[in-house]
Amino acid sequence: MSIKNIIFSILLLFIPISLAAHFLEWGDLIVFITAALAILPLAAWMGTATEEITVVVGPGIGGFLNATFGNATELIIALVALNAGLIDVVKASITGSIISNLLLVMGLSMLLGGIRYKEQTFESVVARVNASSMNLAVIAILLPTAMNYTSIGISEATVQNLSLAVAIVLILVYGLTLLFSMKTHAYLYEVGIAEIEEDEVTHEKPNVWLWSGVLLVCTLLVAWESELLVDSLEVATSKLGLSALFTGVILVPIIGNAAEHATAVTVAMKNKMDLAMSVAVGSSMQIALFVAPVLVIAGWIVGQPMDLDFNPFELVAVAVSVLIANSISSDGKSNWLEGTLLLAAYTVLGFAFYFHPVTNGMG
Amino acid sequence: MSIKNIIFSILLLFIPISLAAHFLEWGDLIVFITAALAILPLAAWMGTATEEITVVVGPGIGGFLNATFGNATELIIALVALNAGLIDVVKASITGSIISNLLLVMGLSMLLGGIRYKEQTFESVVARVNASSMNLAVIAILLPTAMNYTSIGISEATVQNLSLAVAIVLILVYGLTLLFSMKTHAYLYEVGIAEIEEDEVTHEKPNVWLWSGVLLVCTLLVAWESELLVDSLEVATSKLGLSALFTGVILVPIIGNAAEHATAVTVAMKNKMDLAMSVAVGSSMQIALFVAPVLVIAGWIVGQPMDLDFNPFELVAVAVSVLIANSISSDGKSNWLEGTLLLAAYTVLGFAFYFHPVTNGMG
Amino acid sequence: MSIKNIIFSILLLFIPISLAAHFLEWGDLIVFITAALAILPLAAWMGTATEEITVVVGPGIGGFLNATFGNATELIIALVALNAGLIDVVKASITGSIISNLLLVMGLSMLLGGIRYKEQTFESVVARVNASSMNLAVIAILLPTAMNYTSIGISEATVQNLSLAVAIVLILVYGLTLLFSMKTHAYLYEVGIAEIEEDEVTHEKPNVWLWSGVLLVCTLLVAWESELLVDSLEVATSKLGLSALFTGVILVPIIGNAAEHATAVTVAMKNKMDLAMSVAVGSSMQIALFVAPVLVIAGWIVGQPMDLDFNPFELVAVAVSVLIANSISSDGKSNWLEGTLLLAAYTVLGFAFYFHPVTNGMG
Repeated sequence: MSIKNIIFSILLLFIPISLAAHFLEWGDLIVFITAALAILPLAAWMGTATEEITVVVGPGIGGFLNATFGNATELIIALVALNAGLIDVVKASITGSIISNLLLVMGLSMLLGGIRYKEQTFESVVARVNASSMNLAVIAILLPTAMNYTSIGISEATVQNLSLAVAIVLILVYGLTLLFSMKTHAYLYEVGIAEIEEDEVTHEKPNVWLWSGVLLVCTLLVAWESELLVDSLEVATSKLGLSALFTGVILVPIIGNAAEHATAVTVAMKNKMDLAMSVAVGSSMQIALFVAPVLVIAGWIVGQPMDLDFNPFELVAVAVSVLIANSISSDGKSNWLEGTLLLAAYTVLGFAFYFHPVTNGMG
Repeated sequence: MSIKNIIFSILLLFIPISLAAHFLEWGDLIVFITAALAILPLAAWMGTATEEITVVVGPGIGGFLNATFGNATELIIALVALNAGLIDVVKASITGSIISNLLLVMGLSMLLGGIRYKEQTFESVVARVNASSMNLAVIAILLPTAMNYTSIGISEATVQNLSLAVAIVLILVYGLTLLFSMKTHAYLYEVGIAEIEEDEVTHEKPNVWLWSGVLLVCTLLVAWESELLVDSLEVATSKLGLSALFTGVILVPIIGNAAEHATAVTVAMKNKMDLAMSVAVGSSMQIALFVAPVLVIAGWIVGQPMDLDFNPFELVAVAVSVLIANSISSDGKSNWLEGTLLLAAYTVLGFAFYFHPVTNGMG
Repeated sequence: MSIKNIIFSILLLFIPISLAAHFLEWGDLIVFITAALAILPLAAWMGTATEEITVVVGPGIGGFLNATFGNATELIIALVALNAGLIDVVKASITGSIISNLLLVMGLSMLLGGIRYKEQTFESVVARVNASSMNLAVIAILLPTAMNYTSIGISEATVQNLSLAVAIVLILVYGLTLLFSMKTHAYLYEVGIAEIEEDEVTHEKPNVWLWSGVLLVCTLLVAWESELLVDSLEVATSKLGLSALFTGVILVPIIGNAAEHATAVTVAMKNKMDLAMSVAVGSSMQIALFVAPVLVIAGWIVGQPMDLDFNPFELVAVAVSVLIANSISSDGKSNWLEGTLLLAAYTVLGFAFYFHPVTNGMG
């Protein structure tokens, strides 16, 4: 049993603790922190369960499951927050997830991998296709913000309509990327799948019913903990002196993406840099191409004014993250300094969001 | 005779129809549509005539002719619109031509070429030089907009002076790119020319006087049809509920660039991706490096307040198009998904321009 | 003795002339011009002295000296101007140094090198690492401007705090890049050092005490001439009809970077393009990663309100320069046309800063 697994097993204890904190009314701050800690192992187990099921059902349906459940934790937290009306936090968590995947996850992978290996390479075609899809998707979800910012007198309805149109186009593109990766160009992805499988400890055929049960239970528990997290979020963060923007952009994505962080860093330290990069870039891509559109459409269905009109500085931060990540990854090589540069960029953006005035509207 | 040629021959019928529509006063909408349809085959014939003349006069003068007449249709429509005082439409058609070449033409080529061939390549030095020139030119023509947008209290005269200075620098750069491609580094371009010639059906020596006559007649007819198009434009588009911005950015470039679309897609489906890319990128480059400066100088001569101060959202749209096109084409390979991504970007921008409020000034 | 050395020797005469102009009160304009001309040879001698000392003390301390004294002239001028309270000029000279290194120095190198050689190449790993570090550093120093521009009601204290935080992060990153280039990945830099040494005329072991003395004297003289330059700057430039923005962005960097210009162009004409690129990109990187943070911290110590809140159009200009330089250099090849494109971009930006209204605040 690896250190990672031991830590995640201990963290499972926070599930009963967070429930106790909630029902015994230990205060919002403690509920918030314990619920956040409880989500981390659940997200990891969801990832494991999805991968085990994939081994059985094959790359076809398995790829679809992986793609859909890959960002399930973020999606569940965001849906709960959306339902509670915390639109600002939901929006900020979308941009924050993209930023933290591109800078924090990619940066930690390159730094920790680079301390072990002088130079690491990752030059697959998949990385290139993922990066192109991500670039498009990120630009598309930022377009309503750009339009609103550069024009005067745009009505909320216009922004809402444009956001819906963008969401529908992106969902269609998402479907086409699945078609590309599972049907027409599936052979490109076989190397990556081989790397994943090789990485797994167990080689027996997994019990699909068992893992489906695990997946179901974890999903329900994540949803429950997300309720606790969201309910205590506003009081807890204001006690810590943090704005909704900082909470959404920095805190929530760290909680929601913890499993990806652990995976990417672990494989990077085994010199499987292709896999680490595909986790970081692929996760960003899915946020922009699938999670954000689903949230817009869900908001429209439940009657919450969820659109893609972000704070202009979020637009700047995402654009900056994409540019730096492209600039550093475009040559297919990495070293510890490049990892440090990504982390420095994340730190600087973190300072900026921390200093960003709270009172200034978030959209 | 190919299907393309049959379609273009049938479309020639719209020349007499549009004239009838004009003189018999069938209404502005019908004049607009029939004139637009009449321009399509004329533009194609101008392209054919220029290529045939090139075969005879050789790459020297021929290259110059090709470069000058390559965007003749757009230029003629824009000059007619400029003379009629439709400055907003002229400006929008400049940015729209760049966007539609980079996203629509390149996207359709990659998609339709990619359906036939799993992966297509285009790695010539020419593509690289073209892309650099285009990047510079596009940035230069957007600079007055950026300056005006980021500063307060800039007078119209300042923007006009800066636009003229930019236009003169770009015309000089345009001359130098011709010097580069025809003299100092002509050998780089020989492969491309070979591909073009190979692509032609006839291999007899063309009659240069005949084709010069065709070129002259087509140019005059395009100018005439452009008059009809421009005169009916405002009433026709307002009947369709379209803003001047949408008309200029989306509609006019589709009419003006139809010949390039047909050429690029046709050669892409023959797996001549180098040629398809050079049509898309080269055409964008010429719009920014030659057509836009000529229009600024022409406006200054005829006393129309034509400058390079675009709507800020046009700046965003062009910047986005250039970034996506660079991101997708930088590796010299393409597949159907990348084509789809470009088309998705075009669709999303189209929605944005459609939803863009009409009343908000265009510059 | 090369032509370059003869010119620089003659320019040394401007040291006594500038002092005479100052003490005999020949007018601010003459003091400004003669002090500027006097700085040019001093900067060149500082560069030579640093290189000679490097040969003796070895790449370890030598690399540190080179890195620190590489932009000493710019830093001294900026510190003197900062002390005199010319914050606007100091800020503008930071962005101007980046722009002039990326467009003017790189452009002249590619143009003059490209006239001699059809195609030049530069593909070292160092160039890549430098470019990544520069991209990050440039984005980081522009972040406070971007935050201030995209938000309303940000207090000066917030911008100041964020600027300080950014400065500290960048200084740390600067230290890590030195660690990378001198310790963990020093072998990557050996080729470049070999090229530098090969480029030197003398092969005897230099006298380290002599050259240290030269370095000290030159530093003191540069500081003195900078005093004259800064004291006469406001009157002189207003006589010439130039704004503080134009002076800071265009004039001051040309004076401060003259030595780099000479070096880069000289080696480019010897087809050592790797070295020329590393001067241009490396110098930009050091401005953003070391000079700018030092100035922010120095301003904070001496009580001047020095922050990283630039004029928004400076942000645009730097972003544009970085994009064009990346676009042109990313393939590791250059020709005269690419040099021309960079110079055209510099010219266009120069026009924009010239036309930029003076009255509009600079930050």
